Amino acid sequence: MKVSIVVIGDELLIGQVTDTNSGFIARHIAPYGWEVDNIQVVSDTAEAIKQGIEQGFQKSNVVLTTGGLGPTKDDITKQTLCDIFEGTLKESAEVLENIREVFRKRGLELNRLTAAQAMVPDNAVIIQNPVGTAPIMWFERNAATSKQVLVAMPGVPFETEHVFTSSVFPKLLETFPQPYVITHRTMLVTGISESALAARLEDWEEKLPPQLHLAYLPKSGIIRLRLDGHSSNKTELEEAMDANWTSLKELCGDNLLCEGDFTPAEILLKKLISSHQTVATAESCTGGNIARLITSIPGASQAMNGGVVAYSNEVKTNLLGVKEDSLTEHGAVSIPVVEQMAAGACKALGTDIAIATSGIAGPGGGTYKKPVGTVCIAVATANGKTVSQTYHFPGNRERIVDRASTMALIMAIRLL
Amino acid sequence: MKVSIVVIGDELLIGQVTDTNSGFIARHIAPYGWEVDNIQVVSDTAEAIKQGIEQGFQKSNVVLTTGGLGPTKDDITKQTLCDIFEGTLKESAEVLENIREVFRKRGLELNRLTAAQAMVPDNAVIIQNPVGTAPIMWFERNAATSKQVLVAMPGVPFETEHVFTSSVFPKLLETFPQPYVITHRTMLVTGISESALAARLEDWEEKLPPQLHLAYLPKSGIIRLRLDGHSSNKTELEEAMDANWTSLKELCGDNLLCEGDFTPAEILLKKLISSHQTVATAESCTGGNIARLITSIPGASQAMNGGVVAYSNEVKTNLLGVKEDSLTEHGAVSIPVVEQMAAGACKALGTDIAIATSGIAGPGGGTYKKPVGTVCIAVATANGKTVSQTYHFPGNRERIVDRASTMALIMAIRLL
Repeated sequence: MKVSIVVIGDELLIGQVTDTNSGFIARHIAPYGWEVDNIQVVSDTAEAIKQGIEQGFQKSNVVLTTGGLGPTKDDITKQTLCDIFEGTLKESAEVLENIREVFRKRGLELNRLTAAQAMVPDNAVIIQNPVGTAPIMWFERNAATSKQVLVAMPGVPFETEHVFTSSVFPKLLETFPQPYVITHRTMLVTGISESALAARLEDWEEKLPPQLHLAYLPKSGIIRLRLDGHSSNKTELEEAMDANWTSLKELCGDNLLCEGDFTPAEILLKKLISSHQTVATAESCTGGNIARLITSIPGASQAMNGGVVAYSNEVKTNLLGVKEDSLTEHGAVSIPVVEQMAAGACKALGTDIAIATSGIAGPGGGTYKKPVGTVCIAVATANGKTVSQTYHFPGNRERIVDRASTMALIMAIRLL
Repeated sequence: MKVSIVVIGDELLIGQVTDTNSGFIARHIAPYGWEVDNIQVVSDTAEAIKQGIEQGFQKSNVVLTTGGLGPTKDDITKQTLCDIFEGTLKESAEVLENIREVFRKRGLELNRLTAAQAMVPDNAVIIQNPVGTAPIMWFERNAATSKQVLVAMPGVPFETEHVFTSSVFPKLLETFPQPYVITHRTMLVTGISESALAARLEDWEEKLPPQLHLAYLPKSGIIRLRLDGHSSNKTELEEAMDANWTSLKELCGDNLLCEGDFTPAEILLKKLISSHQTVATAESCTGGNIARLITSIPGASQAMNGGVVAYSNEVKTNLLGVKEDSLTEHGAVSIPVVEQMAAGACKALGTDIAIATSGIAGPGGGTYKKPVGTVCIAVATANGKTVSQTYHFPGNRERIVDRASTMALIMAIRLL
């Protein structure tokens, strides 16, 4: 079953906002055998919206739109939907009551523009939005031949995610029950380039049965290998999947980081919690990014005590006990300093393990001996074990921080 | 001048990767009066790529594609481009040499699959990719009537950004010189809902001249107001822009945070550097996110000493000097604790100002008195000034951390 997504909003076309709703929808529907066939990002004009929707219907019977439903004037989506589906805007008492309720909860006063959001097409099924003011509108046409459904959802990711999972997708599943099975499995591979891995897997890939397909998704030093399958015969598909999955794991060997699609921080946190260990961070060039990656996971407090962002040398010496001599002799970006940072964090934060980084993220600060991208990483344990390494990461500041954070987490996973 | 973007890759349609290239391109071309008319995300199939490109050309004379050029087997973009533009794949010695050079720099060994990237359509102008192995391909057709240009770029954001700014866009500007002017100006507004702001600006908006248009872009407690203008008469446009910009600022009054499109961390850092002050963070629920937002800005070390991620209570007492009595009496999520965290961070990290957060980001940990979303924020200065407040943010963990970080930064900006 395929869906087309039309993302509405000038703010996306000028690059002030990034569309994350489509990705969320895609990830949510995949396990049910649903796929996103195409995504179109269009401007806030009647013509672009109309064209986007019609093109979406040429490719699938379900078109989902996000955005274009805010309280402000530039939103013309509703009128355009009325034109396409031949409806008329009318005030809905139910929607108005929901908007009042949302405003009450937020402690805000209702005004005329927000109240206007209660004007909805009279031929749409209205799904209430419990977390925002823009109602969800469900349109149907061609019921006699090949039913087409359009669902218009708000653009705010939090609202879209909530209404899509709780109301919209359950109703879609009911409207279009599916007869065949799709499945994905993902593993993470590290320490090898995409092309070297592809060369290693080439023979295996050629022997894959037609219902299976392998995709390579490299990101920040990790390659996600996703084995996709689809078939009308569930048993046959699962058998083929199992056999090829096992041989794929064998081929990856030591480069296999884990099965499943997890972030390095998730893998680390799981290992820590299951072994009843705690972690701390001591970050210079990554500036809090590793701590953020770990704490962004619900339940992180079970294993994460905290960390120190040691940006200045004074913080390195005062809070982490790095020796001033080491800073003078080797510089802040050096193995001795980063090892002391890791050991110091273990001690200062009372944890079993600590992760430390010190490097030059750029664009300034590089030297001939230590160019931009040089990052020293150390992982230390409370019982005195330490691993450390100097890396040279390519790219800009963001990318260097990203790669260094990922590599530091991988080193900690490998050490555990 | 309008461009269409075709983003190629199954990984985007299944939501494993988010497209950030389109936004980058849009932001880069806007100041030159170029616009992205539409973005299509299509699968790795010849048919989808072909259709996406043809639809792109229906809307503009320039189509940019990103992705679909990796060394692995699932990439069929090049063959499809050959079919559309009637070319043949041939090995380019120049491209092969570039690939060798990139691999040499990365310390990797060249293999057959990567070498195959040197096969390029013989009717395309090849632009070398100095930061990756996939070459950039520039196709032209209809030179006699209405020239159409397609540029195929890699999908890795770092590579696309590099080649687009250094080679592709300069060549596009040369190929399509423009006669008229487009301009944007952005200001940030805070402490007011989108609808209340829209109600306040309604009369002003109605009086806007036809060449100007206002867009509302709300995000994390900040509304970006963008005034867009386009006209063939530069002087007239600038005069209209200036006059309406001034009256818009007046209408925003105390809600105006700043002119220009900056992140709160950028505004704070600028203010700190210009007043020769330093900052530290003491983060519980935001878990390093505020430190990361500040340190992600180049030159942050001029004002940022560092921070403490005080996730556990022990870290709050040991590193930040929070009194155990206060933790017992008021709980970790309380004004007394967060004020002590801020004052303690000022002292421990030797800064002029410190930002502290403590809250319940969820999904667990909420109580009747302190539900998920409760966040206490304090900002303290070395000379004893403190501001603090308790907030209740809606949404999930990510959104609560995001809102709390933004609000903490705004409080620091307001205090300076």
